[in-house]
Amino acid sequence: MASELMTIPARKGKAAVVRAGQRIKIINTHGQQVVDTWAFNLCDMNEYLSMQHTRAYLDKIIPQAGDDLVSNRRRPMLRFVQDTSRGVHDTLIAACDIYRYIGLGVSEYHDNCQDNFFAAMGALGHHPAFCPSPLNLWMNTPARDNTIVWLPPVCKAGDFVVLEACFDCVVAMSACPQDVVPINGVGCTPTEAHFVVLEG
Amino acid sequence: MASELMTIPARKGKAAVVRAGQRIKIINTHGQQVVDTWAFNLCDMNEYLSMQHTRAYLDKIIPQAGDDLVSNRRRPMLRFVQDTSRGVHDTLIAACDIYRYIGLGVSEYHDNCQDNFFAAMGALGHHPAFCPSPLNLWMNTPARDNTIVWLPPVCKAGDFVVLEACFDCVVAMSACPQDVVPINGVGCTPTEAHFVVLEG
Repeated sequence: MASELMTIPARKGKAAVVRAGQRIKIINTHGQQVVDTWAFNLCDMNEYLSMQHTRAYLDKIIPQAGDDLVSNRRRPMLRFVQDTSRGVHDTLIAACDIYRYIGLGVSEYHDNCQDNFFAAMGALGHHPAFCPSPLNLWMNTPARDNTIVWLPPVCKAGDFVVLEACFDCVVAMSACPQDVVPINGVGCTPTEAHFVVLEG
Repeated sequence: MASELMTIPARKGKAAVVRAGQRIKIINTHGQQVVDTWAFNLCDMNEYLSMQHTRAYLDKIIPQAGDDLVSNRRRPMLRFVQDTSRGVHDTLIAACDIYRYIGLGVSEYHDNCQDNFFAAMGALGHHPAFCPSPLNLWMNTPARDNTIVWLPPVCKAGDFVVLEACFDCVVAMSACPQDVVPINGVGCTPTEAHFVVLEG
């Protein structure tokens, strides 16, 4: 049994509870959209999905289907069950924020993943103390030697990932509103994405 | 004029105030010691040195002499002025913590960089809400394609780095107590390190 298909509106965020054993399927509906993703222990907001702990746990920069993503307490939190895309994701780069857009020359308020994160968590009554470094699904920012390059996604419309909760979690997602750098495709046109929560 | 030479005891942490324009020289006294390093805005503990923002700012995994290390508000915080070593450092890996040593089979309490961080900050009256991902000076954990490997440092006794504060900061350091994995040299013998605060 699955929940209804939920929309992450273009440039905005959304969060959902994913209970132990349930799976969240996150869909790149239009194929060129980066989705910043976070997770917290539903019962203890001090435990969160941590990219720096996951890299150490896996000895990998980019997790792959079959891997366990771990919390800041180094315990498996989300199991990366399935990935229909080519597996190009990012764990290196912070969520975009107002300072990012100011640095890019944007003079007015710009939607950003960090604010989307806090808003999405807040809509469920959660107020984390800070914004952890996200799992940037489909973000194509590989490191070549010591240089990080910023490229459009390589996935296609309808590609999805499936993450299974190892314990009760809140998962937050932001359809990245970046439209200055072509990280959401060469057209610089952020789009909506979708997700559904599935029974395990 | 310089402050006295300060010791970071083996397996322990220490923090110091570094005022705008002052420089902190961190010394790998015995040559094989990783020093986890953090910084906070002295006037606002919500602003901290951020590896995920620094990587995005520099388009590099490992910062080099001449680079500005930035805060979570993407403003230069520490200027990486000098590095006498070969420049092998790490920004990918979380500080070691009790969970790390439990995972390595250690059954009793083990000193760890995360607890050292909180203790060192606490000794100066600061109580950060969480432990940011550290700048791991001299830690040799390069990524080859997507695989992170754990190697001994390649520096020599007396190598040092110099970081200049762009605004008033608290800098915390931990002489990493890792003695299970040979990240502090093949002898797995953590040692003391030293630092001195210099006028700009």
